[in-house]
Amino acid sequence: MIDGTNKSLSRNSSPIGAGGLAFVTVQCPATVANLVCGFDILGMALTEPCDIMKLKLINDPKVIITNKDVYNLPTEAERNVAGVVLLSIMEKMDNQFGFEVEIEKHIKPGSGLGSSAASAAGAAVAANHLLGNIFSTDELVQFAMNGEKLASGVKHADNITPCILGGVTLIRSIHPLDIIKLNAPALFVTVVHPQIEVKTSDARQILRKEVLLKDAIKQWGNIAGLVAGFEKGDTDLIGRSLEDVIIEPVRSILIPGFDEIKTKSKEAGALGGGISGSGPSIFMLSKEESTAKDVELIMKEIFTRLGIEFKTYVTTINKSGVEVMKDVRGTM
Amino acid sequence: MIDGTNKSLSRNSSPIGAGGLAFVTVQCPATVANLVCGFDILGMALTEPCDIMKLKLINDPKVIITNKDVYNLPTEAERNVAGVVLLSIMEKMDNQFGFEVEIEKHIKPGSGLGSSAASAAGAAVAANHLLGNIFSTDELVQFAMNGEKLASGVKHADNITPCILGGVTLIRSIHPLDIIKLNAPALFVTVVHPQIEVKTSDARQILRKEVLLKDAIKQWGNIAGLVAGFEKGDTDLIGRSLEDVIIEPVRSILIPGFDEIKTKSKEAGALGGGISGSGPSIFMLSKEESTAKDVELIMKEIFTRLGIEFKTYVTTINKSGVEVMKDVRGTM
Repeated sequence: MIDGTNKSLSRNSSPIGAGGLAFVTVQCPATVANLVCGFDILGMALTEPCDIMKLKLINDPKVIITNKDVYNLPTEAERNVAGVVLLSIMEKMDNQFGFEVEIEKHIKPGSGLGSSAASAAGAAVAANHLLGNIFSTDELVQFAMNGEKLASGVKHADNITPCILGGVTLIRSIHPLDIIKLNAPALFVTVVHPQIEVKTSDARQILRKEVLLKDAIKQWGNIAGLVAGFEKGDTDLIGRSLEDVIIEPVRSILIPGFDEIKTKSKEAGALGGGISGSGPSIFMLSKEESTAKDVELIMKEIFTRLGIEFKTYVTTINKSGVEVMKDVRGTM
Repeated sequence: MIDGTNKSLSRNSSPIGAGGLAFVTVQCPATVANLVCGFDILGMALTEPCDIMKLKLINDPKVIITNKDVYNLPTEAERNVAGVVLLSIMEKMDNQFGFEVEIEKHIKPGSGLGSSAASAAGAAVAANHLLGNIFSTDELVQFAMNGEKLASGVKHADNITPCILGGVTLIRSIHPLDIIKLNAPALFVTVVHPQIEVKTSDARQILRKEVLLKDAIKQWGNIAGLVAGFEKGDTDLIGRSLEDVIIEPVRSILIPGFDEIKTKSKEAGALGGGISGSGPSIFMLSKEESTAKDVELIMKEIFTRLGIEFKTYVTTINKSGVEVMKDVRGTM
C-alpha cells in the first residue's frame, strides 16, 4: 500500500471550483504489462511513446472530450476511457463540477503498450492535480481502473500502476489493492509494434484456465528472480528470469516473427524480453544503448521480410510516471 | 548462480590424503522450506535447532557412520543421507580416500525442519572443508541433493540451499541450478513441532497436479511481494505476502490446530507464517522477541489442549549456514 499522493507538485493548487478555469497538461507514458513472467502483477513505464492530455475544470457537471489525433476514439464520456475515469471522480465529488479534456494519443490503441491505461491514468492524475492532490495513489489507481474496465472488460491495474508511479511496479493484490514500487535499474528498452491486431479479450481467452503445478513453480521461480534482480540491480539475474512457461508459449503464436526476434535479440546481447502486455508489441531489455539499437535493426529486418508494417522505439524506463507539464490558470 | 566457495575458512587446509587424519566439526542448521507462498523455491535457515557432525578423512575409500543420537538412522553409507553425499564426493575424486562421520542429530527426522538437508549439507560442507574448499557452492548443493533424493525421492534444494548459505535463499531454477541469496531482515522465528507424522511423499501426493491460473496469479503476486519485502527489509510487506492459496489449504488439513495457531499468532502480532516444508512443524515470524514468545505460548496452549506432544523453539534467522566449529588435525 503506497499512501499519500504521488503527484504533489501543487499541493497549493486551487481547490474545486476556484474560478473553474485551471487547466493542466500531462504526459502519459506507454507501459509494458506482465514483464514476461509477471502475468497480471508486474508492469514498467516507458519514456517513449507517450500521450499528451490537457484537462480543464469546468463548472458544468459533464465531460467534454476532444480528440487531437487520428484514432477516432469515442467522444461520449461514457464510451471514452478518460471519460469514464473523470465521471467516476466527479461522482465521488458529488458532481460539483465537470471537465473539458483534449487528448493527443501517440500510443496506438491495441498496440499492447498500455494506450488505454495512459488515458485512464493521465485523466486521474491530471484531475487530482487540478483538485489539489486530494486523492492517494491507491485511489487514483481505483479511479483509473474504471477506464481499463471499459477498454478490456477487466479492472486490471498492471498498466495503470506503472503509468502513474513510473518505473517498475508490482501489484501484489488487487483485492485489497497492494501496490509496490520496485527498484528499476537504468536499462534500455527496444520496442516493436507490428501493425497487426491482437485484442486483449482474445489474448486472454486463449489462455487455459488451469496450469500445471510444475509450470507454476517454474513461473514463480522466475518471478521471484526477476523481483530480486530489480531490487538488487542485478541485470544478469533480470535476464535469466525473463522466461515465461505459461502465457508466452500460447500468446506468441498470435505474433508472427516472435520466436526469431527473441532468439536473435538475445544473441545480439539483449538481456531478454517478450510480449508487451497481451501484444502484439514486443519489448527487449538491454544494458547498453548500442545493443538496444542492434535489437531495433533485428526487429526491422524481420518485420520487413514478413511484409508486416511496424513501428519501433529505442527508449528507457520512465522513472516518473504521468508528469504534469504546465499548470496555467486560464482558458485552454 | 553463486560462484566460488562459500565456506573458505581454511583455504590452507591439508589437501587430500595429507596424513589422512584431519577432522572437522560442523553445525548444521534446521531450515524452513517454502516460506508459505514460495513452494519449492524459497527457504530460510534457523539458529535453532541444529545438528552436530564430525567428519574425518581416512585412507580407505569407504564411509564409516556412527550415530550419536536416539533416532536409529541407518549406518550403511548407501542408506544414510550423509553417507550418499560423501559417496558422491568420493566418486567425483576417484575414490582416493574415504570418510568417518559422527552424527549427532537434534533436528528430528520427519519434523519438516530440514533434518535430511542438515545431514546432506553438513556432510558436503564438512568434506569440502577437509579437501581445501575445492568445490563451489553450486557443486556442494548438487552433492547434497543426492541426500535429499535418498530421503524423499526428489532432488530438491529448498532446504539444502539455505542450510549451506544461511539466511533466506531463492532457487530460481533447478535445471540449470540458479540460487540467489536474498536479504534477510532480523526477525524472530517461533517454531512448533507437533509429534505427529507427515511424510514428505504423502504431503506431496495430496497436491493437485493442476492449479487454477487465477490462483497461480495470486500466488506469484505474493511471492513477488515476499521477495520485495525481504530485499527492501519491509517487514509489513513480508507479513502481507505470507499467504498461500495453493499448497497450504490442502496440506494444513494434515496438521491439527493449524488454522487456530495461525489466526491467534497473527492476532498476537506475528507477521505471519505457515507450514514448515511439508510439515508437521509450523513457523511464525515476528518483529519482536516478546511477540515470538507470546506466539510460543499460543502454540503450547493449543497442542496441550489437543493432547498432542510437541516441541517449540523461539529462535532467529541463521545468517551463516553450516558452520565449521573446529578444525583439529588429529584423531577423532
